[in-house]
Parts: sequence; C-alpha cells; structure tokens
Amino acid sequence: MSDAAPSDTPSPPAPDALADPDYRTAAVELLGVLALAELTAFERMSADAALAPTLRDKAALAEVAVAEFHHFQRLRQRLEEMGVDPEEAMGPFLAPLASFHEHTKPADWLEGLVKAYVGDGIAADFYREAAAYVDEETRALVQEVLADTGHAGCAVDRVRAAIEADPRVAGRLALWGRRLVGEALSQAQRVAAERDELSALIVGGVDRPGADLAEIGRMFARLTENHSKRMAALGLSA
Amino acid sequence: MSDAAPSDTPSPPAPDALADPDYRTAAVELLGVLALAELTAFERMSADAALAPTLRDKAALAEVAVAEFHHFQRLRQRLEEMGVDPEEAMGPFLAPLASFHEHTKPADWLEGLVKAYVGDGIAADFYREAAAYVDEETRALVQEVLADTGHAGCAVDRVRAAIEADPRVAGRLALWGRRLVGEALSQAQRVAAERDELSALIVGGVDRPGADLAEIGRMFARLTENHSKRMAALGLSA
Repeated sequence: MSDAAPSDTPSPPAPDALADPDYRTAAVELLGVLALAELTAFERMSADAALAPTLRDKAALAEVAVAEFHHFQRLRQRLEEMGVDPEEAMGPFLAPLASFHEHTKPADWLEGLVKAYVGDGIAADFYREAAAYVDEETRALVQEVLADTGHAGCAVDRVRAAIEADPRVAGRLALWGRRLVGEALSQAQRVAAERDELSALIVGGVDRPGADLAEIGRMFARLTENHSKRMAALGLSA
Repeated sequence: MSDAAPSDTPSPPAPDALADPDYRTAAVELLGVLALAELTAFERMSADAALAPTLRDKAALAEVAVAEFHHFQRLRQRLEEMGVDPEEAMGPFLAPLASFHEHTKPADWLEGLVKAYVGDGIAADFYREAAAYVDEETRALVQEVLADTGHAGCAVDRVRAAIEADPRVAGRLALWGRRLVGEALSQAQRVAAERDELSALIVGGVDRPGADLAEIGRMFARLTENHSKRMAALGLSA
C-alpha cells in the first residue's frame, strides 16, 4: 500500500453525483473555500512582495501571487458553470481565512517566503486529499490548479542563502513554520466543525462511505511527512 | 491638423537607431520607467483591492492589478532581449514613483478606484506620447501594453453608483482627481530634470530634431483634454 496517494479510498462519486444535494453542497464548498484561499493568497503575497529587498525578488513573489489569482479565476468560472454565485460559495470561509492570515502576518521578507512555500504547501496537500473524494471533473480542476505551484520554489534558494549568511535565522524560521502549521490546523478544524457536508466528504455521511479512521490516520501522516520535506528543503527542522 | 495624435512630429528613428548610444539610453529609460510603473501599479492596486467592500469588487480590482503585472513581464522581457539588466533600467525611477504613491495613498475604496482609472489614464497617455518618438519595435510594444487598459473601466460604474447614492462624494473625489494630476506632473517634471536623454527623446537633442514648442503645447492640450474626459466619465468635474 502506497503512502503517497489515498489509493485505498472509496471510489469517487459518479459524474451525476452533483444531483445529490448533500454531495453538491460539499463540492461547492470545496471549490468555494479553495477559490477564496487562492484570492486571499494573492492578496497576502502581493502585500508581502512589498517587503522584498530587491526588484527582482519583488517580481518573483508577485509572479507567485499572480499565478494564485489565475487559479482563483478558474475556480470561479467552474462555480459559475455550476450555476452557483461565487461570492455565496466563498462567504462561509471569509472568517477562518482572515483569521489565519491575521495570526500569521510575516514580520519580514523571509517569513513571507516561508509562508508562501510551507503554508501554501500544506494547504495544497489538504485540498488535494479532499479532492480524492469528489467527482472526476471537480477533482481534475482542483488537481490542475494545485499542480501549478512550482513558482513557490523561488523561496527555497532565497531562504537557504539567508541561512547560510546568518545561521541564527534558521531557529526563528523553524518556529515560524511550526506556527504556520498550528494555525492552519486550528482553522481547518474550525471549518470542519461548522461545515457538516464538507467534513462528510472525507469522513463519509449517513448513506455514503468515506475514509475510515485508519485512512484518516494515513492522511495526517502524509500531510505531516510532506510538511517535513518542505521544511527540510528550506534547510529548517520541522 | 488633427488634435488626436502627434501627426506632425518628426519621423521616428529607423530600426537601427538603437546603435546611437544616446537614443538607446532614452529607449531603455522609457522601457525602464514604464516597467517599474507597471510593477508598482500592480503592487498598489493589489493593496487597494484589500479595501474592497465585496469579494466581487476585490476580484475586479485584483484583475486590473494582474493585467499590469503581465505588462511588466512583457517590458522586462524586451529589456532582457536588448541585453539590459531590468533592475538597472528601473532603478533610477524608484524614488519618483515611490514618492508619487506615497503622496497619493487612497483613503478608501472609491479613492482607489479613481486612482486606478484617472491616475493610470494620465500616465498611459504620457507614455503613449513619448512612444511616438522611439523606434518602431519599442513603440509597438509600448502601445500594445498601454492599449490593454480596458479593465480599469470597472471603476466607472462603481464610482457613478457611489455618487448617485451620495452626491456629496463627488466634490471630494473631484479634489482627489486634481491632486492625482498635480502629483503626476510634479514627479514627471522631476524625472525630466534628472534624465537628459529621456527628455531629449521628446524635445530633441543636439543632433536630433524633437517636438517644437507648438507641438509640446498641443501635447499638453491632449493630455489635459483626455484627463477631463476621464473625470467626466466618472461624473466628476476636472
């Protein structure tokens, strides 16, 4: 059994699954939270680009922000095609996402880079896990949007160079990485508690199988492992 | 003689004009100031999008910001093709552009919209005038990048609606529009005083004809007229 993908999860719903109102709600919520996350990431990263020490660095982070905005546009379009008002679909997630960013304001350029790489990485992993349970068309779009995150790789070289120049920053940034994960989990839990249909997508509902406890355990193991890999890529202990 | 275009200006330099070091400097400076203006506009508009009253409005202004970033990418690519370091080409204009934005921070969402429409409009007009004097390839790129500003039209409906809802905002926004123009002219003058080659592009140099005084007068008439049209489109007196 592979650790890399949720291969033993139940088959995703058939294309006509959207006829089921609970499932439809869950798919709309997944697209809604992801669309808002992309729009918010655009907003935060554009602001963080203002902290860049050089024009080259500013342009590099702005490029990541712009990629996020294009993801938002694709998700918004899908919601509109489904006959859903994107603003309504995003609305329920305004408070948790604002709270996450409120609690994780980078104090400087390096914290902004770590947030772009580590914070977005764990969020992308989580959305990818959830996408395993949705219909094929929704899943393809979510995967497409999340696959295109190579841009954030620009963070790796810059953070490693900063640590080489001053090894003391590694300790501070490692703490920062842990705080990012803690805040992300805390907001994810808040969303799960408030959005029954979205949680049922993963854990299953009354009449639909979901992941069993063992699979949820493996999902968290995958999330943690990928997070540690990203921290290591930056030269930080997780 | 048409008022709409600088039709009686001297012919632009031939394609091999870039071999002339003074002319080359001027073309690089035009591309450099425009590239930095687009990158800075991206940065300011993304920040102003945070003031949006709704997610729809936020996405609309973010879309304008993203279009500006793509313009920046095109201009940066052209500079690189010319063998110029984009950071070096943009560097001399950092202070005047930062100063412009420092002095014209929108106090609210409506001021941000007026700035996106009126401020960018007058800047685009000015760059377009300067482009009349450069080689064909540079001119085509500048015109292409500046033509794609239809996005800012999203400001018109929103500002008009706000004035209809509360006619008192018209007076405040009209003052704001005048301040934007005043600051733009003041920074343009500062750039002209410091960058001899760039100024010589328009007024001519020792061995190259430029616009005569009458043409410069007509240029300012065109800039003012277009500005008044934009203010009128927003329902504001210029």
